Amino acid sequence: MGHGPYPNIPIGGGVSPQVQQWFRAVDKDQSGFITAAELKGALVNAQGQSFSDTACNLMIGMFDKDRTGTINVEEFDKLYTYVNQWLTVFKTYDVDQSGHIEEQELSKAMSQMGFRFTPEFINFLIKRSDPKDGRVSVDQFIVLCVQIQRFTEAFRVRDTQQNGTVTIAFEDFLNVALSCSI
Amino acid sequence: MGHGPYPNIPIGGGVSPQVQQWFRAVDKDQSGFITAAELKGALVNAQGQSFSDTACNLMIGMFDKDRTGTINVEEFDKLYTYVNQWLTVFKTYDVDQSGHIEEQELSKAMSQMGFRFTPEFINFLIKRSDPKDGRVSVDQFIVLCVQIQRFTEAFRVRDTQQNGTVTIAFEDFLNVALSCSI
Repeated sequence: MGHGPYPNIPIGGGVSPQVQQWFRAVDKDQSGFITAAELKGALVNAQGQSFSDTACNLMIGMFDKDRTGTINVEEFDKLYTYVNQWLTVFKTYDVDQSGHIEEQELSKAMSQMGFRFTPEFINFLIKRSDPKDGRVSVDQFIVLCVQIQRFTEAFRVRDTQQNGTVTIAFEDFLNVALSCSI
Repeated sequence: MGHGPYPNIPIGGGVSPQVQQWFRAVDKDQSGFITAAELKGALVNAQGQSFSDTACNLMIGMFDKDRTGTINVEEFDKLYTYVNQWLTVFKTYDVDQSGHIEEQELSKAMSQMGFRFTPEFINFLIKRSDPKDGRVSVDQFIVLCVQIQRFTEAFRVRDTQQNGTVTIAFEDFLNVALSCSI
């Protein structure tokens, strides 16, 4: 949309025109804010199914600091950046493009994101996502990434010695756990 | 249904006939298992609204140890007992039967259930449930009780000194947090 000699500066604090366009497409009622329901209406996984309510609520909740249940275009931009990074990792390991990754791949994906988890923990994650087939779909992977991201931030703040261990009192424990849950 | 001299023994491992009848009413497809969707179809709050998906998922999740997304009649019986206790506490403090309790009442309700929380934490709980009006509806109260119940159990197991503090490593922290979240 640039005209003549003027540079094409994105409006809205550095949000690219492409992301702004996506935002407007998702924001069905053109309110300037996206709800979990609007996000759900816009996302489809490899099997042609909608993302779960949990996934959409968690994604909105990542940036919905004032708990209004909505995010604006700048927050959407941040969400978009995160989700894109996670999708890139997921696609790296979903070599047959089935829309699922299995235990070994999940382990590698987590390593690539900087997490060193035990095989037992990876197995727990897999069972939690899909107790039957032992695999993780793309939207389950995003749910997992959002949750791990949030809990890791909460842990890191309290890990003052940076030794991977925190000592935490009951009420603070509840506070962290409830803040990060939906 | 007792006949003649035979005692009226409840079928199904001590589940009362009333709870069994409720179970059958909720179990719309008569599968012998209740899903979160079936539970949602059966529960209505004081405002005539359905309970949230979160509330129903959390309630099923309390007893759905094998993560099939369903509970059987014995598990329903346990869930029913818990929910009844919470409802009794809620009703005690919802004196005008508005279907909501406010900050002071929530504090008293939590005390009655054995929790000694700081005013700051009670305020956090209220804001989390309803940032606008600062009150808690009955289904939000149940969500809160389910979550606090689950996190408290997880904490207690690790609080080997019984002094209200635990020292926890990163992976175990994630494990607890993810196990108790939906």
